[in-house]
Amino acid sequence: MSEARYGPDRSLDEFHSWWKELTERSAFRVERIPFADLRRWRMDPGTGDIRHDSGRFFTVEGLRVHSERGPVHSWSQPIINQPEIGILGILVKRFDGVPHYLMQCKMEPGNINVLQLSPTVQATRSNFTRAHQGSQVAYIEYFTDLRPDRVLVDVLQSEHGSWFLRKRNRNMIVEVEEEVPLRENFRWLTLDQIGELLRVDNLVNMDARTVLSCLPLSHTSGDAAADTALRSWFTEICATHNVRTQSIPLREVERWEHRADEIAHEDGHHFKVVAVSVRATTREVSSWTQPLFQPCGLGVVAFLIRRVAGEVQVLAHARAEPGFVDVVEIGPTVQYQPSSYPDGSPPFADLVRDAAPERIHYDTVLSEEGGRFRNAENRYMVLETDDDLPEPLPEDYRWLTLRQLTGLLAHRNYVNVQARTLVCAMRLTLGLS
Amino acid sequence: MSEARYGPDRSLDEFHSWWKELTERSAFRVERIPFADLRRWRMDPGTGDIRHDSGRFFTVEGLRVHSERGPVHSWSQPIINQPEIGILGILVKRFDGVPHYLMQCKMEPGNINVLQLSPTVQATRSNFTRAHQGSQVAYIEYFTDLRPDRVLVDVLQSEHGSWFLRKRNRNMIVEVEEEVPLRENFRWLTLDQIGELLRVDNLVNMDARTVLSCLPLSHTSGDAAADTALRSWFTEICATHNVRTQSIPLREVERWEHRADEIAHEDGHHFKVVAVSVRATTREVSSWTQPLFQPCGLGVVAFLIRRVAGEVQVLAHARAEPGFVDVVEIGPTVQYQPSSYPDGSPPFADLVRDAAPERIHYDTVLSEEGGRFRNAENRYMVLETDDDLPEPLPEDYRWLTLRQLTGLLAHRNYVNVQARTLVCAMRLTLGLS
Repeated sequence: MSEARYGPDRSLDEFHSWWKELTERSAFRVERIPFADLRRWRMDPGTGDIRHDSGRFFTVEGLRVHSERGPVHSWSQPIINQPEIGILGILVKRFDGVPHYLMQCKMEPGNINVLQLSPTVQATRSNFTRAHQGSQVAYIEYFTDLRPDRVLVDVLQSEHGSWFLRKRNRNMIVEVEEEVPLRENFRWLTLDQIGELLRVDNLVNMDARTVLSCLPLSHTSGDAAADTALRSWFTEICATHNVRTQSIPLREVERWEHRADEIAHEDGHHFKVVAVSVRATTREVSSWTQPLFQPCGLGVVAFLIRRVAGEVQVLAHARAEPGFVDVVEIGPTVQYQPSSYPDGSPPFADLVRDAAPERIHYDTVLSEEGGRFRNAENRYMVLETDDDLPEPLPEDYRWLTLRQLTGLLAHRNYVNVQARTLVCAMRLTLGLS
Repeated sequence: MSEARYGPDRSLDEFHSWWKELTERSAFRVERIPFADLRRWRMDPGTGDIRHDSGRFFTVEGLRVHSERGPVHSWSQPIINQPEIGILGILVKRFDGVPHYLMQCKMEPGNINVLQLSPTVQATRSNFTRAHQGSQVAYIEYFTDLRPDRVLVDVLQSEHGSWFLRKRNRNMIVEVEEEVPLRENFRWLTLDQIGELLRVDNLVNMDARTVLSCLPLSHTSGDAAADTALRSWFTEICATHNVRTQSIPLREVERWEHRADEIAHEDGHHFKVVAVSVRATTREVSSWTQPLFQPCGLGVVAFLIRRVAGEVQVLAHARAEPGFVDVVEIGPTVQYQPSSYPDGSPPFADLVRDAAPERIHYDTVLSEEGGRFRNAENRYMVLETDDDLPEPLPEDYRWLTLRQLTGLLAHRNYVNVQARTLVCAMRLTLGLS
């Protein structure tokens, strides 16, 4: 077992050689193809929706959105409809008393570097009920035959509300005491080690980040009055953010151009729908084609933080994203794609862009879900403010303690996936809580 | 002021004479009418949907439901679509140190006895933004201009998921210290007094019950491990309950018959859509017509409870109702309409029906929302079990402590409206927590 894990006393050199070896060994090719070359996926001749012949996995369809707020009140767009809820699960086991997390070196077709560090299990229901007709998902039994007293985290969390319609996954951390057979492509890592790896661009994948963000705090000394005030602010925003959405045929989205190999916004903004062919040896199925969403630029995702009476506070933004199950979730201070905002940027974006280097505590480019998005990268940042923010804050913005934000992660539909990545980074790389 | 409230030391005799006087004084008439006699409401000639000329208030439309579980996997039905979020708010103020709640004697057209005891404010957005063109909603300013430190409760809660599509209201309790002018039809009552009134059939309305159920417990000594296990059970059910719904034209609901004065299920089950004309003097507008849903029988809503190590536990049922925003919420042990179950009843219904009188702690007939439902009554019961329940429980059932259930009420989308009525009854009439 000794080569399988990297105890707190050991450097990550061995990890990095293992990773290098897997990278060199992995044989796959991902290529853009025209939609006409998709196999087992087709564009519905009536609606233009892109769906799998089996009716499973996901569908690319259209969504019409009406919102009373925001710079644009009404638009339509392509969106991914994937109603089934998958499992993102991490096994944890103590070695010499120190918790180690079983992480996977996993290939995803949309990842710019293809291999990324992933949870123990990352499986759609189609995966683990064998719709792929591929091999059994490794370690899935630890997450489907649960012993309640071993479950540390088990909560539905949303994914990108601008690209997914009502998509959630079950975020799970399960502790084991017994011996766990170690499969190829898996390693046990401590939180400190994962934190160190979170400083490397495009290494720790989105699914690993969201699961780890849900780890409960060991001490949860709450402030009941502050928590009530926070929930009241959130309720007010939910109650007054009137967002209506309506599924429409993909063919009917307005201002999007349908070409042979992409569906793109007429201004080149936001993202494109593309298709790829994949040949690989390290995934459940060795060759396939599929659609992916490809953003049209690097995103910026940042939390402004400050310290008050020794506690870290983050400047949160209650955001309506059209694909959220429940209208509004709490996101980072800044979350946008600068190239899609030619005429001005959202609140606080300038503060992030112009921040003095000594205020930047975290600054790493990370990928979003490589199974659905192609080269979807965001520059994730944590910046300490000098307290000279304009007052009053816009009503959708509020300072919350990192403790409050983490407490909300015990429940579904409160904190968006970008904010969860930053929670993970703050806790694992900055040691904040 | 002395006649305006009934201190803890005083009997409710005075309250009852006040109530009797209001009942005698109130002049209104509610009558069934054919749909063709609706004024400012019309049936869309294409879809058959029933909507208001202003486009506001609510719409009666169709819903198609597919569910992997339950006795019936696929059906369609009429449903009320009321996307806007209203305010249900209660003002609280201490007199001689004792909290008193400002309650309203309010007329609703669907109430069998018309007048019921209601929250201080019970207003749709159309109400308080004056779409009715009626008078200003009394006391609304206490709930729209908030002082955060005075807010005790502020949370979105769902309403009947079988009759409403994604309906929620903002449940609020706000404390005031200053003098509050007392309007006609309003009285200050203590929780003990409201508890006593909760023993009277059809007196305390649904909106008052749901708001009061959300009162936080004064002591919240949590059991983190038990709470994690509870949330894991709930997450499992949410992740595996695959319910899909689709809005359809009311005309396309199958097995429902459209008549001149009602839309009814062909077997006479569930409910009917009807229309009424209302003439009243004690409401914002003195005369109007509107559609209502009318159930086809008395419902039964019951919690089985037990005591373990001095703590009250309730047998909860995680239910999928098609109108819930998020698929599954926690409901009572039993919630059904016996006349619509001719071929057998849901789990534990027999235990409730055959319970020995000495095990029945609470047993009162209460009305559901009289603004949307006509003569919608449920027999609400709390029964103590003798612990001889069949084991293992069906997977959607679980014992939780009343403390846990109340803790979940701080968040949206966890506990359904019928369970909330019983939480209110257990806390206010049985003194349980």
